[in-house]
Amino acid sequence: MELVLPISAKENLKKNMKSFSEKLKRFPGLLWQTVWRVGRDDPRRVVHALKVGLSLTLVSLLYLLEPLFKGVGQNAIWAVMTVVVVLEFTAGATLCKGLNRGLGTLLAGSLAFLTGYIAEKTGLVFRAVFIGTAVFVIGTATTYMRFFPYIKRNYDYGVLIFLLTFNLITVSSYRVSNVLKIAHERFYTIAIGCGVCLVMTLFIFPIWSGEDLHNSTVIKLEGLAKSIEACVNEYFNNVEKETNQDKSPEDPIYKGYKAVLDSKSQDETLALHASWEPRHSRHCRYPWQQYVKLGAVLRHFGYTVVALHGCLQSEIQTPQHCRVLFKDPCIRVTNELSKALMELANSIRNRRHCSPEILSDNLHEALQDLNNALKSQPRLFLGSNNNQATNMLAVAAAHANSSQKREKYNGVSLSSFKTDNSALLEWKSKRMANENSRTEAAERKVLRPQLSKIAITSLEFSEALPFAAFASLLVETVARLDNIIEEVEELARIACFKEFKPGDEVIVNFKTQKVNVTLNHFSSQGAE
Amino acid sequence: MELVLPISAKENLKKNMKSFSEKLKRFPGLLWQTVWRVGRDDPRRVVHALKVGLSLTLVSLLYLLEPLFKGVGQNAIWAVMTVVVVLEFTAGATLCKGLNRGLGTLLAGSLAFLTGYIAEKTGLVFRAVFIGTAVFVIGTATTYMRFFPYIKRNYDYGVLIFLLTFNLITVSSYRVSNVLKIAHERFYTIAIGCGVCLVMTLFIFPIWSGEDLHNSTVIKLEGLAKSIEACVNEYFNNVEKETNQDKSPEDPIYKGYKAVLDSKSQDETLALHASWEPRHSRHCRYPWQQYVKLGAVLRHFGYTVVALHGCLQSEIQTPQHCRVLFKDPCIRVTNELSKALMELANSIRNRRHCSPEILSDNLHEALQDLNNALKSQPRLFLGSNNNQATNMLAVAAAHANSSQKREKYNGVSLSSFKTDNSALLEWKSKRMANENSRTEAAERKVLRPQLSKIAITSLEFSEALPFAAFASLLVETVARLDNIIEEVEELARIACFKEFKPGDEVIVNFKTQKVNVTLNHFSSQGAE
Repeated sequence: MELVLPISAKENLKKNMKSFSEKLKRFPGLLWQTVWRVGRDDPRRVVHALKVGLSLTLVSLLYLLEPLFKGVGQNAIWAVMTVVVVLEFTAGATLCKGLNRGLGTLLAGSLAFLTGYIAEKTGLVFRAVFIGTAVFVIGTATTYMRFFPYIKRNYDYGVLIFLLTFNLITVSSYRVSNVLKIAHERFYTIAIGCGVCLVMTLFIFPIWSGEDLHNSTVIKLEGLAKSIEACVNEYFNNVEKETNQDKSPEDPIYKGYKAVLDSKSQDETLALHASWEPRHSRHCRYPWQQYVKLGAVLRHFGYTVVALHGCLQSEIQTPQHCRVLFKDPCIRVTNELSKALMELANSIRNRRHCSPEILSDNLHEALQDLNNALKSQPRLFLGSNNNQATNMLAVAAAHANSSQKREKYNGVSLSSFKTDNSALLEWKSKRMANENSRTEAAERKVLRPQLSKIAITSLEFSEALPFAAFASLLVETVARLDNIIEEVEELARIACFKEFKPGDEVIVNFKTQKVNVTLNHFSSQGAE
Repeated sequence: MELVLPISAKENLKKNMKSFSEKLKRFPGLLWQTVWRVGRDDPRRVVHALKVGLSLTLVSLLYLLEPLFKGVGQNAIWAVMTVVVVLEFTAGATLCKGLNRGLGTLLAGSLAFLTGYIAEKTGLVFRAVFIGTAVFVIGTATTYMRFFPYIKRNYDYGVLIFLLTFNLITVSSYRVSNVLKIAHERFYTIAIGCGVCLVMTLFIFPIWSGEDLHNSTVIKLEGLAKSIEACVNEYFNNVEKETNQDKSPEDPIYKGYKAVLDSKSQDETLALHASWEPRHSRHCRYPWQQYVKLGAVLRHFGYTVVALHGCLQSEIQTPQHCRVLFKDPCIRVTNELSKALMELANSIRNRRHCSPEILSDNLHEALQDLNNALKSQPRLFLGSNNNQATNMLAVAAAHANSSQKREKYNGVSLSSFKTDNSALLEWKSKRMANENSRTEAAERKVLRPQLSKIAITSLEFSEALPFAAFASLLVETVARLDNIIEEVEELARIACFKEFKPGDEVIVNFKTQKVNVTLNHFSSQGAE
C-alpha cells in the first residue's frame, strides 16, 4: 500500500503537470483568438484603445516636458487621472462623466471652501471636531442622496465625485493653509485633462451613443424578422426537433429574439448617454427617448415570438399531417410579416420614412388566405353559410343554452364579427381613394389602424387546437406589428427622417455589421 | 401695440414668478417625500449612508489627530479616497471592488517599478521617451483588454485601477526620486482604508448581495403567482377593460411580471457580487449560479404570462358567454398554479425543500376538470367515443386525405395520444405506492416529470378558437411550472436546504417586504 500510493501520486502529479503545460501551450493561441475576435466584432474598440493611449501620452507630456512642467507643476498628475477616469467609449458617456465630474468638483470645492472659512476662525481642537462632523454629515447625506431614483439615473457619478473632492479638500485644509491655491491649480490641470478628453472624444474618430442606439434598433428589428421566419419554418418542417428543450445559442430562433428581450438596461444607458451628446442637426433634437419607447414595443413583440417559439416546444402538438393543411398560408403571412419588419429596419437604417406599402395588400391577402384555408376545412367549421361568420364557440354557447335541442345550431350568426368580405371591400375602396394623396402623414395614420383592425377581426379562425394557439399568436404578432409601425412613424416624425421616395426599397440583405453593443456599453457603466 | 406688449410681458413674468415661487414652496415637501420614500422602501439604505459617514470620519481622524498624522503623514488622504470609492451597498460589491483595487494597485506598482528601474539607467531625454512610450503602450493594451468579455465581467474595475496607478507612479517617477518610498507609504494608507471598509461592510449591519438575490427570487415567484391569478380573473370577469392597451404601472398583472422580465442584468450583477462574499455555511457553497439559472427559467415563465396577458388585449375575443362555460375549471387550474408558485416562494424563503404535494392531486384534478369541461360540449368534440381520444384535427386530416367521403370521420382514433383515464389511474397507483417513501429525493424526481407529462398530454382540448389559445397558454404555464420546480429542487439540493416536514406549509401571505433591489444594485454599478 505504501509503495502504491506514491506512484499513483507521482502519476497524478505528472498528469496534472502535463495537462497544465498543455494548457500553457494553448494559452497564446487562445489569447490571440480572443484579441482577434474582440477587434473583429467591433473595430471601433481598437480605435478607442489607441485614443486612450494617445490621450494619456499627451497629458503625460505636461509632466515630462520641462517648459510645460514649469507651468503646471506637480499637479499635472491630476490631468493624467482625469483622462483615465473620464475618457469613455462613446462621446455621450465621456460628456456625461466629464460634466458630472466638473459639476461635482465645482460644487464640492465651493462647499469645502465655505466649511474651511467657518472653521478657520476657531481654535485647533474645535476645528478638528467641526471638520469631522462636516465629513460625517455630508458623507451620510450624499450617500443617501445617491439612492434617489432621479439622481441615481442622471448624476450618480457627479455625486460620488462631489463626496470625494469635498472630503479631500476639507480634510487637507486642516494641515495645509493655502487650500484655495491648491484647489485652483488642481482645477486648472483637471480642466486640461477634460479638454484632452473632449477633443479626443468629439473630434477624433468620434463614437456616438446615439449611433449605437440607432444601429442596435435596426439589428433588433432584423433579428425579430429572422426569428419569426425561422420559428414558423421549423413549425411546419422538421417537427422532430421539438424535444430539444435547451435553447442552444446557435438556434436561429433564439438568437434572433435574445438580443431584444434583455435590451432594457442597455437601451436606457445608451439613451442616457445619447442625451448628453450634441445635436447632429439644427432642426431636430435627437429622439433618444423615442428609441427607448420603440425598444419597449419591440420587447413586447419579442414576448409574442417567445410564446410562438414555445408552441414548438410544447408537450401537446398538432400532428404534422394536420399542420401541412395550413402550411402555405401561414408561411405566406410570416414572409409578409418579416418583410414588413425588414422594411422598417431599412427605413430606420436609411433614416427615411417607411414605405406606405408596409402593411400592404400582400400582408392583408396573406391573412385572408390563412382565413380561407382555415375555412376550407368545412367540417372544422360547422354551419359555414357564406357571408355569415359563424363560430364553434357561438355554437357551443347556443348549445349550452339549449342543450336538449342539438339540431338547431346551424347558421348562428354573430353580429359582433364583421363579415370579412365586406370589410375588405370597404377598406380596398378607401385605400384606392387615398392612393394619390398618400404622402400626407396624417392620412397615413388614419389609414393604418383601421386596416390592421380589419385585417385581424376579419379572420374567423376555424377549429384547430394547439394549432389554434399557434395561429392565434401569429395573428397577435401582426397586431403588435402595428404598434411597432406606429412608434417607427413617430420616430421618423420627431427625427425628421427624409420622405419616402418610390425606389427607396432596398433589397433585403441580412449581412449587416454585427455589433455587440452590450460589451462596449458595460465598459462605460462599470468604469471607475 | 407698444403699450400692450410690456404689460403682457409683465404679466407673463408675474405668472412665471408665481408658478416658480409655488414650485419653490412645494419643493421642501416634495424633497421630504422623496427622502421618506427612499428610506421606507429599504431601510438598509439609511444604515448604509450612516456607515459611509462613519467610515469617512474614522479615516479622517488619521489626518485630524496629531499622533496618527505623525504616523502616516500626508498620504492619509489616500485612505479617505479609498473609502469613498470602495465602500459599496452590499458586502459582495465592496469586496469585489476592494480586491480588484488591491490587485490592480499591486500589479501596477510592480510593473511601474520595473519600468522605472529600466528607465533609471539611461539619460534624461531617453527616459522621457521611454516613459512616454510605456504610457502609450500600456494605456492602449489595457483599454483594449477591458473589452474582453471575461475581464469585463470580473475585473473591469481592477484593470482601470491598474491603468490609473501605473500612470501615476510611472509619470511621477520622472521627477521624484524616491518613488518606492512613496508607493510604500501610499500602499499602507490604502490598506488602512480597505480595512475600515471591510470591517464596516462585513461586521457592522452587513448587507449581503446573496441575501438580496435570494429575496428578489422569492418576490419574483410571488409576483408571477399574483400576475397569473389576476390575469385569468380579468379574462373571465370584466372583459370590457380589454381596450385599455397601455399598461399602467398600477395594473396588478403588469406589476407582477414586470420585475421578472427585466431581471437579467440585475440578477447577474447580484450573483457576481455574491460570488465574492464569504460562505455562510461550511458545508455548502453559495449557489449564486443556480439563482441565475432559476431567474432565467422564471423569465421564460414570465414570457408565457405576457402572452396570456396578450390574450386579454387581443383584437379577436371569444364572447363572454362562451368563456363562462369554462370559467370554473380555468380558475381552479390558475388557483392551483399560483398556490404551487407560492409554495415554491415559501420554500425558498424558509430555505427548506418544497412540499412533495406541490404538483399535487389538486393541480392534476383541476387540469382534468378543465379537460372534462372542454369535452362536456359534445358538439365541440366530434366523435366522442368514450376512452378513445379523438380530435378535430385528426378529423380534419382524415377529411383532407379523403375529401370526397365526408361521412366517415366519426371515431378516428389517435394512437399517439394516451387515453387520459388510464394514464391517470396508472399515475395514481404509482403515487400511492410511493406515498410512504416520499422523503427520498430520488424518487420524488422520478415521480414529477412523469406526472406533469401525463397531466398535460392527457388533455385533449376541444375546439374553441381564441379561447383555445388562452387555454393552451394556460396549460403551457403548467408545463413551465415543471421547469421552475426542477430548478428550485436543484437549488435546494446545492444550497443544502433543510428537509421538508409536514406542517411546514405556512399560510400564504402576500405582505412580504417590498424591496426595490434595482435601485440599490445600480448604485454599485455606476459607482466610480
